[in-house]
Amino acid sequence: MDDKGTLIVISGFSGAGKGTIVKKLINTYDRYALSISMTTRAPREGERDGVEYFFSTKEQFEEKIKEGGFIEHACYCGNYYGTPRAYVEKQLAEGKDVILEIEIQGALQVKERFPESLLLFVTPPTAVELENRLRGRKTETEEQIAGRLSRAYEESEGMDNYDYIIINDNLDKCVEDVHSIALAAKCEPIRKKDFIKDIRNGLKAYSK
Amino acid sequence: MDDKGTLIVISGFSGAGKGTIVKKLINTYDRYALSISMTTRAPREGERDGVEYFFSTKEQFEEKIKEGGFIEHACYCGNYYGTPRAYVEKQLAEGKDVILEIEIQGALQVKERFPESLLLFVTPPTAVELENRLRGRKTETEEQIAGRLSRAYEESEGMDNYDYIIINDNLDKCVEDVHSIALAAKCEPIRKKDFIKDIRNGLKAYSK
Repeated sequence: MDDKGTLIVISGFSGAGKGTIVKKLINTYDRYALSISMTTRAPREGERDGVEYFFSTKEQFEEKIKEGGFIEHACYCGNYYGTPRAYVEKQLAEGKDVILEIEIQGALQVKERFPESLLLFVTPPTAVELENRLRGRKTETEEQIAGRLSRAYEESEGMDNYDYIIINDNLDKCVEDVHSIALAAKCEPIRKKDFIKDIRNGLKAYSK
Repeated sequence: MDDKGTLIVISGFSGAGKGTIVKKLINTYDRYALSISMTTRAPREGERDGVEYFFSTKEQFEEKIKEGGFIEHACYCGNYYGTPRAYVEKQLAEGKDVILEIEIQGALQVKERFPESLLLFVTPPTAVELENRLRGRKTETEEQIAGRLSRAYEESEGMDNYDYIIINDNLDKCVEDVHSIALAAKCEPIRKKDFIKDIRNGLKAYSK
């Protein structure tokens, strides 16, 4: 039981660099498994089913909700997004730390259902830097950028609900931070319940 | 303010190997400063003033208590032990993570006064292993060993009060665990208050 993996949820402002951090983390260390979300939105150019997302119809998605097949799901802009339960539970049982890269709304759902999960919030070092990164991507219109920045302000209200804040001003440092958090978590008493019970029982024999 | 060091308190069963872990940690990484306790007990053979302990008279110690010169102090077996405040506060202000290797009673005092401190509990993997290590040291009588084991059982009741449990079955792994905990702590929101305030203020300009 103590050897179960940890559920690590990574959220953050759009443009903060979550995806890059997660990719490097997964490629650097063996201990992590990346959960792939399911969505009903159409694939964008270059997106492959089972890599960026599992793509499904609205009917399939709603059926899966009914079956309790998601550990969290939410609806954004008319599309469903969810984390399929089976993969996550299998990896955790095998001792892998499972990374979920999901929105704040989903992250808080996960924390409620899995209090032992870790919520990490990725942010650029400043608001101006966030604006520069969003512009630098050259993938969005001015209006979309303004929308993302405005939404970032709303999301910043929830930062205190996170267990850890990852300030992304250096990719390698961020990856080291996330890895340290994962290793540290293994030493939390909540994940050492069996051990604590066993050693107490063992020591009892010596008590006067 | 966010760059202040972290107070890291290391306690654990007598014979668990705290001292060895702390020594290796300090010798491996620059970021740590080791706090040296003050005591009124007589130096043991080979102990040097200012290295293992600061040795003082009972009168000097009690004067220092009155001046508020300790961040914690306690009396064991008729001798005072305490952590001098000045050194700890100077190192923390300079951004060093300060290691205190102290007893459980003192550790809980520190947590009460410095809620942001981290309490680490070092334990061998099993009760039998603890007994073997105590015997292996060949520094104590059978009666003393029995006393330490009996005390370990009492102390095990307090393990849940600790933030982290370090199971010492491999020295290098323990050092890595403590270092990961120190790095992870830097990302806790409680230590990022100024940053969170600043980025919220920065993002407010973009809110619609």
